[in-house]
Amino acid sequence: MAPVAAAAEQQHTGKAAALAARDASGHLAPLTITRRSTGDDDVAIKILYCGMCHSDLHSIKNEWNNAMYPMVPGHEIAGVVTEVGKNVTKFKAGDRVGVGCMVNSCQSCDRCDEGFENHCRGIIFTYNSVDRDGTVTYGGYSSNVVVHERFVVRFPDAMPLDQGAPLLCAGITVYSPMKYHGLNVPGKHVGVLGLGGLGHVAVKFAKAFGMKVTVISTSPAKKQEALERLGADAFIVSKSADEMKAAVATMDGIINTVSANMSIAPYMGLLKPNGKMIMVGLPVKPLEIPPFDLIMGNKTLAGSCIGGMRDTQEMIDVAAKHGVTADIEVVGADYVNTAMERLAKADVRYRFVIDIGNTLKSSE
Amino acid sequence: MAPVAAAAEQQHTGKAAALAARDASGHLAPLTITRRSTGDDDVAIKILYCGMCHSDLHSIKNEWNNAMYPMVPGHEIAGVVTEVGKNVTKFKAGDRVGVGCMVNSCQSCDRCDEGFENHCRGIIFTYNSVDRDGTVTYGGYSSNVVVHERFVVRFPDAMPLDQGAPLLCAGITVYSPMKYHGLNVPGKHVGVLGLGGLGHVAVKFAKAFGMKVTVISTSPAKKQEALERLGADAFIVSKSADEMKAAVATMDGIINTVSANMSIAPYMGLLKPNGKMIMVGLPVKPLEIPPFDLIMGNKTLAGSCIGGMRDTQEMIDVAAKHGVTADIEVVGADYVNTAMERLAKADVRYRFVIDIGNTLKSSE
Repeated sequence: MAPVAAAAEQQHTGKAAALAARDASGHLAPLTITRRSTGDDDVAIKILYCGMCHSDLHSIKNEWNNAMYPMVPGHEIAGVVTEVGKNVTKFKAGDRVGVGCMVNSCQSCDRCDEGFENHCRGIIFTYNSVDRDGTVTYGGYSSNVVVHERFVVRFPDAMPLDQGAPLLCAGITVYSPMKYHGLNVPGKHVGVLGLGGLGHVAVKFAKAFGMKVTVISTSPAKKQEALERLGADAFIVSKSADEMKAAVATMDGIINTVSANMSIAPYMGLLKPNGKMIMVGLPVKPLEIPPFDLIMGNKTLAGSCIGGMRDTQEMIDVAAKHGVTADIEVVGADYVNTAMERLAKADVRYRFVIDIGNTLKSSE
Repeated sequence: MAPVAAAAEQQHTGKAAALAARDASGHLAPLTITRRSTGDDDVAIKILYCGMCHSDLHSIKNEWNNAMYPMVPGHEIAGVVTEVGKNVTKFKAGDRVGVGCMVNSCQSCDRCDEGFENHCRGIIFTYNSVDRDGTVTYGGYSSNVVVHERFVVRFPDAMPLDQGAPLLCAGITVYSPMKYHGLNVPGKHVGVLGLGGLGHVAVKFAKAFGMKVTVISTSPAKKQEALERLGADAFIVSKSADEMKAAVATMDGIINTVSANMSIAPYMGLLKPNGKMIMVGLPVKPLEIPPFDLIMGNKTLAGSCIGGMRDTQEMIDVAAKHGVTADIEVVGADYVNTAMERLAKADVRYRFVIDIGNTLKSSE
């Protein structure tokens, strides 16, 4: 840890049990970390569940070359409020709450004012980010956390903490672009490209919006599940030239959740005029798109990165109303390294969630 | 000419003087063509002016591999109504009118119903397109034309026919995406990439909308003109790293009018979060865009192709109200081959317009 961060951490009065990676092996092992005392605008939260996002895997292995160790991952946090600061009006002890990918922002720029804290230059991520006091943020693979109330989301009564936790990343990531690009309108037809952690939630939201949903996947094995369990209306095996051809110019939009390098041109052809493909996955290689394919039919290729806090609260409220939750496999803290190995192989339907409350023990 | 088209043409009762290319040399020479008689829904127009669009040049040289010779180009047509069919209600003889890139569509699909005839699968282009009667359409480098009233635009009194003609292609091409992507809002900041036939009209519309406009060009020589004559607020030489850096994340949108192959990533960096780059030029090579550049800041890359008829009428009404016209160089019919040579070198500010009424003589 950098000396500045270490010095700042000495001001912290709280402690938490955590699972931390010490190096780019990504191996997670118990560590006692500190948490700041509950400030005037803060909410202290006892963490009960934390989802395991694919970006946790990238981060602990330093695949994005920005790792600060020790690193405590986790940005799909659900738990119960234990204490609030004197200025906090939205929450009280006992409330069921969540925390997603951000724990602070400048709170004063145009972006923050417009509700897009996710675009603020002063954004502080939930883990592996330098906090205002100079410490490095630690995420939700830990027993408790202290967060400014603006970045805390209220869980509606109908939303389970375990199945709701992944919505704080996977849910808002697909909900926000569906809202802003008009892909939340009954009767419209949306394609969901890739059926994983993001994709399965996109299918559920799209059905909640009353849309026609077609799942597009390389894997025929996912067809039955897509149609019968998730409620998709149609399924296209992307390797089938016939199935792709039959779907040309039928979709108002496509939520592209694929993170592998890919050729997007064939999928752009599935869009109607004025259709939109929204990238929420993050392939490494540049996308290639012939200008003609964009211009003929006024197509749009857009990206979207999580969402602001107003939208995150709205998302979880909408999800609760319509019964949208993540399909999860709950695991204990001692299973987390195995879960990471399975996550690397996409061997989960569709999200691991760590049962922090019952299984994460203090290392002291 | 194909036998079918020739047979159909025998049904035509009208004649017109025209300038036609006979082969891929693209050389234009006088030709007498036929025009259909004025049908019940048709408007017969005496052509007075026709703009010379860069796509005319591509077409006559068969650069898009779809040429049908003889070809009479021209889709920026302005003139006066000489006769109307019995069902025509919107126009009468003597009206000042224009015709743009389309002369018909199916008029019954969802796209047509929604006002996007430009996306109709049954679209019939103003030239080099097979018309409903099997003939090949001839464009505006000719003395008269007969067009379904739906595809005829009324010129407001304040709009000159010569300076207004290019708006029917260049004008709607930039107006439509500015409208649909919200780049017509006072106070917003739009970049116009490339200052030619499309770009200079985009600057004028953006100023009419009350926006801040920055022209981005490879050519420092265009700075004075952009600022002083066209009224742009700022000018960036795209080759200047300093100027580009200073403009990072300052623009709500960019109208990209460049038709040369280009790297768009540096320009995407000029966009604010939620910013949009709209392609209206048509480079040949695929665009490359790193997914990260789209996802961080929710950027949009979209294409746009002309616009529907309702929007075209609206565009020319808005242009007339705000004094938006094309900057033109009026030429005679005997100068058209020289003008094409100059057009190929971009040696025109910013549009050639042929004075059809005064200079195009019958070849008979």
